[in-house]
Amino acid sequence: MPTGRLEAFSDGVLAIIITVMVLELNVPEQPTLTALRDDTGVGLLTYVLSFVYIGIYWNNHHHMFQIAQYVDGSVLWANLHLLFWLSLYPFTTAWMDETDLARTPLVVYGLNLLAAAVAYYVLQRSIFRSPGGDRLRQALGRDLKGKISPAIYIAGILLAFVHPLLAVACYVAVAVIWLVPDRRVERFVAAAADGEAPAR
Amino acid sequence: MPTGRLEAFSDGVLAIIITVMVLELNVPEQPTLTALRDDTGVGLLTYVLSFVYIGIYWNNHHHMFQIAQYVDGSVLWANLHLLFWLSLYPFTTAWMDETDLARTPLVVYGLNLLAAAVAYYVLQRSIFRSPGGDRLRQALGRDLKGKISPAIYIAGILLAFVHPLLAVACYVAVAVIWLVPDRRVERFVAAAADGEAPAR
Amino acid sequence: MPTGRLEAFSDGVLAIIITVMVLELNVPEQPTLTALRDDTGVGLLTYVLSFVYIGIYWNNHHHMFQIAQYVDGSVLWANLHLLFWLSLYPFTTAWMDETDLARTPLVVYGLNLLAAAVAYYVLQRSIFRSPGGDRLRQALGRDLKGKISPAIYIAGILLAFVHPLLAVACYVAVAVIWLVPDRRVERFVAAAADGEAPAR
Amino acid sequence: MPTGRLEAFSDGVLAIIITVMVLELNVPEQPTLTALRDDTGVGLLTYVLSFVYIGIYWNNHHHMFQIAQYVDGSVLWANLHLLFWLSLYPFTTAWMDETDLARTPLVVYGLNLLAAAVAYYVLQRSIFRSPGGDRLRQALGRDLKGKISPAIYIAGILLAFVHPLLAVACYVAVAVIWLVPDRRVERFVAAAADGEAPAR
Repeated sequence: MPTGRLEAFSDGVLAIIITVMVLELNVPEQPTLTALRDDTGVGLLTYVLSFVYIGIYWNNHHHMFQIAQYVDGSVLWANLHLLFWLSLYPFTTAWMDETDLARTPLVVYGLNLLAAAVAYYVLQRSIFRSPGGDRLRQALGRDLKGKISPAIYIAGILLAFVHPLLAVACYVAVAVIWLVPDRRVERFVAAAADGEAPAR
Repeated sequence: MPTGRLEAFSDGVLAIIITVMVLELNVPEQPTLTALRDDTGVGLLTYVLSFVYIGIYWNNHHHMFQIAQYVDGSVLWANLHLLFWLSLYPFTTAWMDETDLARTPLVVYGLNLLAAAVAYYVLQRSIFRSPGGDRLRQALGRDLKGKISPAIYIAGILLAFVHPLLAVACYVAVAVIWLVPDRRVERFVAAAADGEAPAR
Repeated sequence: MPTGRLEAFSDGVLAIIITVMVLELNVPEQPTLTALRDDTGVGLLTYVLSFVYIGIYWNNHHHMFQIAQYVDGSVLWANLHLLFWLSLYPFTTAWMDETDLARTPLVVYGLNLLAAAVAYYVLQRSIFRSPGGDRLRQALGRDLKGKISPAIYIAGILLAFVHPLLAVACYVAVAVIWLVPDRRVERFVAAAADGEAPAR
Repeated sequence: MPTGRLEAFSDGVLAIIITVMVLELNVPEQPTLTALRDDTGVGLLTYVLSFVYIGIYWNNHHHMFQIAQYVDGSVLWANLHLLFWLSLYPFTTAWMDETDLARTPLVVYGLNLLAAAVAYYVLQRSIFRSPGGDRLRQALGRDLKGKISPAIYIAGILLAFVHPLLAVACYVAVAVIWLVPDRRVERFVAAAADGEAPAR
């Protein structure tokens, strides 16, 4: 099966997720910057964060399906499974925002990020097993970013019990790791991983 | 007429349906797990159910139009007819959710599921009649899942008058039948149908 | 310029318009059929009507751009102009629905339908003038449906001042004319036009 | 990397932005033209303005990626950066509308317009640097519209402190400059730029 329609459907879902989040932003009732900060400030920050995350997933999805050019039934479902967790981002983002970054919503947001990362990993595995999947395996190489991200999500979830902003810092860190152009980060992460290798 | 644009439009509509349902989820006002369970619990379950249903339809639609490569005017309208019933899922799901699975909304949701199944059947028929439709007829074979689903929907609608959860069980059962990988289920359903054949 | 991306963008906009209207439906607070009829009844009817209209436009748009395979800048803007009027359907439909088919909203809805029909006509004209436009002109022939629809819209707008349901009847009539398979209607309309020709 | 999926994703996002803005329109509670003017009047005007802006961006985006047929990673992110600022249009438009064109929301809307224009410029630059980017550079020529627009946005932002309607006038002016068919405007702007050159 060619990947064309899977990509088109995923593009549609990701485009909608990334855009409907803006509907969850509270429009301030007063025409002042104070009202904007108080009513929408946190919402704008969480919007930027979730926008960047969906952008990263779209970017990686795009690369992955440029290499994997044929899919079977299990890939279709693994892809829908990923889209399911991503489709909850507007909901968990809104909860985190409306409670002003309270602990429980931050933990739930982190679990959502983690579930999406796991679903992405499962999708990769199911492509590895489909015809031509070896090419993707080679292209990904050690995939350090993919391996380190879930660890940072878990750290964020745990640190939410210490202080909410530590969780936010972890979630932002993952986004930054993926945003920074590939080669430099991979070298940095590779170096860090080498340095920490004995500690594992 | 080639099917490209019909597929693109259907992908768009299905992508939106599957995603806007998340906008109907109530964001809890309190930042606690109790609030999440009380305010959003039922909503999340019905969201998963409807997400899976739309995913199944997208999957089957995708397969169907890979085989049927040309369409005529009646197929265009049969397809819009299917999309109409699917577009009501966010509405019937929200009603079912906000009334905490009360009987009437469960019956209406079941009727919506049934109407979509009938519309899908009508769409298949109209493709059978279009040029190249025989290929789809052969590929579908006995189509046991397609035939058994409406029966289970009707059972669910009737059982809603006994107990709401029996209706939910039926609706979940149909989703599971379609989710389980094809071959095993087909064998199971085929075996069940053979065993029950005299009872028909 | 090839038409691919114009079609993809139009498909996206039409898919969203046809689907977001369901978000405007009031979910009844009570789990009873009475509540469904009172809170959502009119909304469901106007939803069906607008769904059918957008479906008709998608259908015709699809046919038109299968014939016209190249577009220039003026066609891009004529297309956006059409999409603008169609994008107001959810708004005018919601107003008509929430005021239970009051006269002014019915007139405004009729004007919206009329504006979209005019925009469609302008789009056709701009395709006629683009290279290869003659093929579309030939394919459309006398285009009786396209010519009779605005007249019925205007009749509906005027009849709204007599009785709201007469306006609704006119708007439904146009949808029916387009829904009925082409050949029979065209013959009927052609016959009617011939019969009425002296009266014009 | 071919541009197909970047275009499809951008089309999806732009189609959603242009359409969800209609969900922000207040549906009047009374069925009268007075209610329409009072409750929705300003909203309709700002809707038209933002619709035209998104239409212009889609149009230019469409042209740009017809010339630039290959993209690299930096173009993907520059494109997402542009989509981010455009995705805020429904929010800033709603604030401007609901405060009846108060000064601060008008300034924020102007900053949003300016940020999108800068993001578009950055996207162009990153395409210039990608293989085949020279063709786009030649096609754009002096790109006077692109250079004059940010200046008018800044003028509008500053004039909002004098009178709100002066800001609106500037924002409308930019839309008109882009709407008017290319050649005439380019000549006009070119002539104006030549005439004003010494004054710079």
